[in-house]
Amino acid sequence: MNASVAIQTLPKAENDEELIRIVDEVIDYIKSTGLNYYVGPFETAIEGDYDELMDIVKECQHIAIRAGAPSVSAYIKVTYKPEGDVLTIEKKVTKHHQQQGE
Amino acid sequence: MNASVAIQTLPKAENDEELIRIVDEVIDYIKSTGLNYYVGPFETAIEGDYDELMDIVKECQHIAIRAGAPSVSAYIKVTYKPEGDVLTIEKKVTKHHQQQGE
Amino acid sequence: MNASVAIQTLPKAENDEELIRIVDEVIDYIKSTGLNYYVGPFETAIEGDYDELMDIVKECQHIAIRAGAPSVSAYIKVTYKPEGDVLTIEKKVTKHHQQQGE
Amino acid sequence: MNASVAIQTLPKAENDEELIRIVDEVIDYIKSTGLNYYVGPFETAIEGDYDELMDIVKECQHIAIRAGAPSVSAYIKVTYKPEGDVLTIEKKVTKHHQQQGE
Repeated sequence: MNASVAIQTLPKAENDEELIRIVDEVIDYIKSTGLNYYVGPFETAIEGDYDELMDIVKECQHIAIRAGAPSVSAYIKVTYKPEGDVLTIEKKVTKHHQQQGE
Repeated sequence: MNASVAIQTLPKAENDEELIRIVDEVIDYIKSTGLNYYVGPFETAIEGDYDELMDIVKECQHIAIRAGAPSVSAYIKVTYKPEGDVLTIEKKVTKHHQQQGE
Repeated sequence: MNASVAIQTLPKAENDEELIRIVDEVIDYIKSTGLNYYVGPFETAIEGDYDELMDIVKECQHIAIRAGAPSVSAYIKVTYKPEGDVLTIEKKVTKHHQQQGE
Repeated sequence: MNASVAIQTLPKAENDEELIRIVDEVIDYIKSTGLNYYVGPFETAIEGDYDELMDIVKECQHIAIRAGAPSVSAYIKVTYKPEGDVLTIEKKVTKHHQQQGE
């Protein structure tokens, strides 16, 4: 695993319900890739191979348009380290969630 | 609750261990505010009153410097709706985490 | 000058004209601070003292609401180096604009 | 022109000079695409066709690695409207720069 990304896909939508419906379709697509992912309140993080992740990031906006959005914005974070591993999602968040659950 | 923010505080650090140590101090500070928060792999989301959240966001970088970072970067997302509520963290992520846990 | 920030204030608006009108009020406010700034297509960069910059960043969303937006989002980048200078806006962009103008 | 993006490519680098050298190679690559672009202090905006822009965004990080960075981060903004035009870079920034030059 040489990369991780986080993506917030923001479709233009009439109301919150429509927004959530379209974002859920994007998240379903991300789940369907089989990669490790992590849904947060503003963005979904995914980890894997850099080129594959960037292709997924590109597709997310097509998914939002196909789901009915007339336009879409996105905010994307990327970390890529060709030799050696990037910090995993698990390493970054697990201990904090354990503390939250105490 | 009229606002939510997400903040990624990125201290300059010698290595990953030092980076994690400093980021943990920032997250400890966020926890100490008593507000609802959510730690993700790239950013921590917090929900509450807009002015209070922006003061917390400002303080996060001071925390990183006091923890030993010579410089710090931050990436911040804000959503603010003075009348009426913004979408809660729980509303945004709970169902997806249940699906992940199935 | 120990810090620079970049802010994209995104008011909810009925149409592009209304969006531009509100964003222009935010940019007018930034100009009124007297600090060095740089308007780009997605965000406006400002340089100065960290605490002052973060107060300006906080105010930008209040400006958008007062200008008529029912809600507002913002995307903010921060770089802060208490001892020593951060890279200036001029150092970062001037040569590229000269090349563009050739 | 159905889309515009803004990208901040942040290579890991020993010092500011090395950082600037690598970022300049990324900007040179963006210029070489022949698309309309706009260099700002934190990010470079580009406008064109969505799929082509996302391929360029993906390549930017490869350029930074080939230029010598051991790892690279990136922050990317996207706006995409398949039918009809997005706001152009020129429409967004020109008037503000005229005001700055007065």
